[in-house]
Amino acid sequence: MIIDCAHYKDGARQHEEALSPEQAAERAMAAGEGEFVWIGIHEPEPDDLNRLAGLFGLHELAVEDAQMAHQRPKIEDYDADFFIVLRTAHYHEDSEIVHFGEIHVFAGANYVITVRHGPGSELATARQRLEDRPDLLALGASSAVWAIVDKVVDDYLPVVDAIEDDIEEVEKDVFDDDVPAPTARIYHLKREVIEFHRAVWPLLSPLNALEQGGYERVPEELRRYFRDVADHARRADEQVSSQRELLTSVLEANLALVSVNQNEVVKKISAIFGIVAVPTFIASIYGMNFDNMPELQWHYGYALVLALMALCVTGLALFFRRIDWI
Amino acid sequence: MIIDCAHYKDGARQHEEALSPEQAAERAMAAGEGEFVWIGIHEPEPDDLNRLAGLFGLHELAVEDAQMAHQRPKIEDYDADFFIVLRTAHYHEDSEIVHFGEIHVFAGANYVITVRHGPGSELATARQRLEDRPDLLALGASSAVWAIVDKVVDDYLPVVDAIEDDIEEVEKDVFDDDVPAPTARIYHLKREVIEFHRAVWPLLSPLNALEQGGYERVPEELRRYFRDVADHARRADEQVSSQRELLTSVLEANLALVSVNQNEVVKKISAIFGIVAVPTFIASIYGMNFDNMPELQWHYGYALVLALMALCVTGLALFFRRIDWI
Amino acid sequence: MIIDCAHYKDGARQHEEALSPEQAAERAMAAGEGEFVWIGIHEPEPDDLNRLAGLFGLHELAVEDAQMAHQRPKIEDYDADFFIVLRTAHYHEDSEIVHFGEIHVFAGANYVITVRHGPGSELATARQRLEDRPDLLALGASSAVWAIVDKVVDDYLPVVDAIEDDIEEVEKDVFDDDVPAPTARIYHLKREVIEFHRAVWPLLSPLNALEQGGYERVPEELRRYFRDVADHARRADEQVSSQRELLTSVLEANLALVSVNQNEVVKKISAIFGIVAVPTFIASIYGMNFDNMPELQWHYGYALVLALMALCVTGLALFFRRIDWI
Amino acid sequence: MIIDCAHYKDGARQHEEALSPEQAAERAMAAGEGEFVWIGIHEPEPDDLNRLAGLFGLHELAVEDAQMAHQRPKIEDYDADFFIVLRTAHYHEDSEIVHFGEIHVFAGANYVITVRHGPGSELATARQRLEDRPDLLALGASSAVWAIVDKVVDDYLPVVDAIEDDIEEVEKDVFDDDVPAPTARIYHLKREVIEFHRAVWPLLSPLNALEQGGYERVPEELRRYFRDVADHARRADEQVSSQRELLTSVLEANLALVSVNQNEVVKKISAIFGIVAVPTFIASIYGMNFDNMPELQWHYGYALVLALMALCVTGLALFFRRIDWI
Amino acid sequence: MIIDCAHYKDGARQHEEALSPEQAAERAMAAGEGEFVWIGIHEPEPDDLNRLAGLFGLHELAVEDAQMAHQRPKIEDYDADFFIVLRTAHYHEDSEIVHFGEIHVFAGANYVITVRHGPGSELATARQRLEDRPDLLALGASSAVWAIVDKVVDDYLPVVDAIEDDIEEVEKDVFDDDVPAPTARIYHLKREVIEFHRAVWPLLSPLNALEQGGYERVPEELRRYFRDVADHARRADEQVSSQRELLTSVLEANLALVSVNQNEVVKKISAIFGIVAVPTFIASIYGMNFDNMPELQWHYGYALVLALMALCVTGLALFFRRIDWI
Repeated sequence: MIIDCAHYKDGARQHEEALSPEQAAERAMAAGEGEFVWIGIHEPEPDDLNRLAGLFGLHELAVEDAQMAHQRPKIEDYDADFFIVLRTAHYHEDSEIVHFGEIHVFAGANYVITVRHGPGSELATARQRLEDRPDLLALGASSAVWAIVDKVVDDYLPVVDAIEDDIEEVEKDVFDDDVPAPTARIYHLKREVIEFHRAVWPLLSPLNALEQGGYERVPEELRRYFRDVADHARRADEQVSSQRELLTSVLEANLALVSVNQNEVVKKISAIFGIVAVPTFIASIYGMNFDNMPELQWHYGYALVLALMALCVTGLALFFRRIDWI
Repeated sequence: MIIDCAHYKDGARQHEEALSPEQAAERAMAAGEGEFVWIGIHEPEPDDLNRLAGLFGLHELAVEDAQMAHQRPKIEDYDADFFIVLRTAHYHEDSEIVHFGEIHVFAGANYVITVRHGPGSELATARQRLEDRPDLLALGASSAVWAIVDKVVDDYLPVVDAIEDDIEEVEKDVFDDDVPAPTARIYHLKREVIEFHRAVWPLLSPLNALEQGGYERVPEELRRYFRDVADHARRADEQVSSQRELLTSVLEANLALVSVNQNEVVKKISAIFGIVAVPTFIASIYGMNFDNMPELQWHYGYALVLALMALCVTGLALFFRRIDWI
Repeated sequence: MIIDCAHYKDGARQHEEALSPEQAAERAMAAGEGEFVWIGIHEPEPDDLNRLAGLFGLHELAVEDAQMAHQRPKIEDYDADFFIVLRTAHYHEDSEIVHFGEIHVFAGANYVITVRHGPGSELATARQRLEDRPDLLALGASSAVWAIVDKVVDDYLPVVDAIEDDIEEVEKDVFDDDVPAPTARIYHLKREVIEFHRAVWPLLSPLNALEQGGYERVPEELRRYFRDVADHARRADEQVSSQRELLTSVLEANLALVSVNQNEVVKKISAIFGIVAVPTFIASIYGMNFDNMPELQWHYGYALVLALMALCVTGLALFFRRIDWI
Repeated sequence: MIIDCAHYKDGARQHEEALSPEQAAERAMAAGEGEFVWIGIHEPEPDDLNRLAGLFGLHELAVEDAQMAHQRPKIEDYDADFFIVLRTAHYHEDSEIVHFGEIHVFAGANYVITVRHGPGSELATARQRLEDRPDLLALGASSAVWAIVDKVVDDYLPVVDAIEDDIEEVEKDVFDDDVPAPTARIYHLKREVIEFHRAVWPLLSPLNALEQGGYERVPEELRRYFRDVADHARRADEQVSSQRELLTSVLEANLALVSVNQNEVVKKISAIFGIVAVPTFIASIYGMNFDNMPELQWHYGYALVLALMALCVTGLALFFRRIDWI
Repeated sequence: MIIDCAHYKDGARQHEEALSPEQAAERAMAAGEGEFVWIGIHEPEPDDLNRLAGLFGLHELAVEDAQMAHQRPKIEDYDADFFIVLRTAHYHEDSEIVHFGEIHVFAGANYVITVRHGPGSELATARQRLEDRPDLLALGASSAVWAIVDKVVDDYLPVVDAIEDDIEEVEKDVFDDDVPAPTARIYHLKREVIEFHRAVWPLLSPLNALEQGGYERVPEELRRYFRDVADHARRADEQVSSQRELLTSVLEANLALVSVNQNEVVKKISAIFGIVAVPTFIASIYGMNFDNMPELQWHYGYALVLALMALCVTGLALFFRRIDWI
């Protein structure tokens, strides 16, 4: 589904309504330096992409990739254009789950085609932000690439922070005796963190190439902006790496605490059983049927034995408390 | 066993029936640019290979490797040809096991010899796909190499997805209390994932060289196609690496949960024993044989003691339920 | 909040009182080689930075970063100046916690602007130390950068040593039977060590570039001073890496010891229960009501049985002591 | 002890009997292209080596290393010759243990001196294999180096396969309930695998250099043969790395299974105790001595209670079986 | 404290008695090629170093480092000299502990100043060994650097071997059932191994540079000697890395064995309790007070019940022995 299709020239959008792909292709063909069209697609039908591929001469391999989500993040340089795959991340507050989406970008000299897969990868703000910066917009299609990558990477940071909060919650759970060990939650956080790393990490090397000027078609003026994006991506990736290691440690600490806890339980149980076993043993003695058991005839025998039992119970209870078993 | 032997020229197969190796060698010798023969062998007898080695001048070291499966994936550049070893992967739905096969390829300027070891590495679809692309076919033997490597690497992706599904099943098992801990299955998944990594990883560096133009004999036009293959191989390898880490975490989470579970069991047992031990103790008191135990003479003594026992049992049961032990 | 603003020329501060930013900018503009102004800001209001950005022509991306703490440590080279982000570390003795702060530095040819976020990143001593070295001061703004980075990195070392002390305390706790296992503390130390690594590690590569002369604007004479800083940073990072591994091992050793401990507890409990169960069994025999139990009529039957019980208890106690269960 | 000393010329051994070192040195001195002597020593006396060092001008550092086993595998380039250290591996079937030996090689333009330490590093087959290849033999001393390295590396593969078999046995033991957990065997396999890695890994980089033509004195024609060796060494190393990771996982799985097993045991025990405790409690009730316990006078009281007990036992047994505790 | 101060010329020491620093500096100043003075200091007072710094023009940063132990191992190239930091290792047989010391070296064209911190880093043997090699001594101050580094690195090897022995002892303890699990000792070995790695690892890269000829001032003839040192350092580091991994595995195996052991204990205990519980239950039956319990009147009732108990005990004991619980 085509969402929007705009023509940018001299640092400004040329019209409000969306162009048709054919109009867009025509204008792109005729465009001069710093002039370009931006076509936004969401969950494309195969036909949408094939039509655009025909109009803009997109490479078949890139088009094949763009048909389907679950591509590897990458920046590929074709003769006429770039094909860029980005994974978007969005933290869903209620379910405390990170949703991953995908954005594919075809970026030629005078056109940008963005293909969004999945939810949470909306680009309107990137478009808006770019339109507020005529100086960058005037640098052409590369500025749109920057705006998109910048938006996607900036959206990583709140997700990483939300995961950080989740980890802190989990730490509290683990080290607070009264909450059951949140093993499953730790695991699912780790899974998210691993998937996140897989979204960010492959971007670092091509972003680095952009920063170092490895792609000639990107204007010199934008390099610093790409360096800024690369820096944020690195920050997200480093934090995510730390989180991965933290979660491994939390899992291990959790395991140790489960064992410590079990130890406590075993001690407590044993103490209580011990407290019951000893008076039971005493009672069993006076349950024997010997003819000659003088205590049985004593008038206060029963009372004395009860007292003895009480003494044992109290003594054992105090003893076990002193060695911290109950 | 020689499976097929075809002559390709001007982007099309020249005849339906299979050539003999000698005919093939003759045509290869006489072939011009973009013209080549493709010989397919399955589970070769030593004689098959030696005959071809003589006809095509294959290097003894490559022939020695091709006699036996269990080679390391690699792309080796000889003077006259390439020798390529690929490991194929196939997920067997019923047994939920990944089967690995092997394909060895001798690729000269005007001939391609493919040697398959083991099941699940069938190349007919690669051959078919290539025949549908006369433009690529016309680039010569290198296009057949691409078709083969592309097929093998594309076949990795459904396997990786199937392993992903298996991991999700295992996660459900681990975090669902009623299923016994699937330790053995986690381990066997990990084994597969490690073996998979060993199949994919050594390919990444030579595929990179193909993408970067490190081999002069590969036509410029095919480089992008090899880049596409390299990208898919990297994607498979990265996903497999994540899976490896996930499975390590699952194993650890599993261990923690086994411990937690044991804790639950110990608590439950202890509670039940406690509930039985206290009334047993009470009974043992009134089993003592003291002459002077006034309660024994009470008319409702027995009933009272039974009531006391019932009270103890109920009280303990409520207590243990409140502290969540039963 | 602007803290100080000084003008350095010919290796000396030119006046006692702080200049206004406008005066500073004016002098910086007019400054010759080796002459510069140094402006120190703490917890900046957005206005402070925007005003300085206007006066000194700071790059918008750097200013955006400097507004907020939680940047990644880095050294970024802009046309006119460097933007440097440093994380400071300070060990708080009472809480035994490491506090991290941040210092951002804009360093042009004739000006240095330092922006501090958070506590514990005070720069007065760096300024003082530099003022005591007219030879370095005369090298211009780069010398101030050195003084700042040197101060920040030198402050890492006592923190690393304090963590080392904490680890030694934790080791004593873990391997000393009487103290409960300090799982939570080990974990929190590991967390600190991971965060520390994240503060130091990203600095190593740009410090290396400074040492190797990768930045032309840094005078040759200062390179060795930056090498010294890089060496200290590497030392901190290597020690922190070792600590990370040590803490992982401590956690594992802790887990093993918890299990060993539990084993001891189970043995002890079992021995005690065994010691009680056997005489209880004997008593239960003589509690049977058979008509024909000759022992019951023996005059010393009761005494003999009590003696037998005592014998059993003593024998079992000795046995369990010999196999080291109690 | 000098084992053999042969003179090779024009691709063939010149005589049957062994030369004396002095004769060998003389012939080496006078040798032309592709002509060389090969001296084989086993467990050398210091004198043997010093004598050869004098005759062939070996470097004192290499001679010092060759006196003693336990050198690091390496290929060192001296002015006049190479000094090569190889670690040999041999799997001893009966003890299921890998034995490591060492071979040191001095390889000059016209001589090869091989020094063997320890058992299982016999070189006769390498010598034989080379003598069967006059074409390679004619390339001079480098061909002997190839024959030796090839032999040593080829001998790695059956060892790796034997370890693979051992790992599969261990896996069976771990996941088969009836065999005690083979922790010690897993550990010793891991030890072997680590030591194996230490034998192979340092060779990879110099073998790579040989393959890439990093050593000028090695004839172009042999490079491919060294590439073949390097490929086999890499294969052994990669398999050994996988095995290392597998063994770590087996150890973890083993730990989880021990815990699961313990859980089973605890459940089984608890069920049995529960089955005994309840009828014991019932018996203790009717062992009380209350005057007024009507059941005691019932004619079928005893039978009824016995029936009740049987009922409890059966009921509990069925219950515990249903929840899978017995 | 200045230990020795010698003047070497033409490959020989020029006098027996120690020179004063001032004399040494004078001779160094006047020294030609291959001539140098060697000053040895132990636990320097600040004054000692400042005096030498003045005499020999040492760089303030190097002098600052040399004042204090706990520097990072490194080789720093100043204009006039090298500053080298080495960590020495010494295994103390009685306490089975590795002691680490430090040696700092200032090496100019015509002087060598060695500063020792801590025990166990004595250099007399290095000096002696060098004096025995006039050919090397004649190469100048670099030969003294080689002699020192060679001595320090050679001293690593017996330490590594001693740690190897300790690990083998620990393995025996772990896999021998009767010795308590040596968790603390494993941990302390791991700590040593980690610290050792930190001593050796940073040296590898500058030693490599020395070997590759990265430092121009080092004579060509010495490169091989430095390569030999680098090789030994690499060997120590690789062995230490293996030991680190081994110790991790030992710790894990230890944990598994502790669990297995606990399992054994629980089984044994349960068997014994089971053996006691059943006859106790039988006794409790005949302790019931029913009027109509025919067995009680049987003449051999008591004997039969005792026999039944004995039968149960024997049967249970045999059963538990068969399932290997006792």
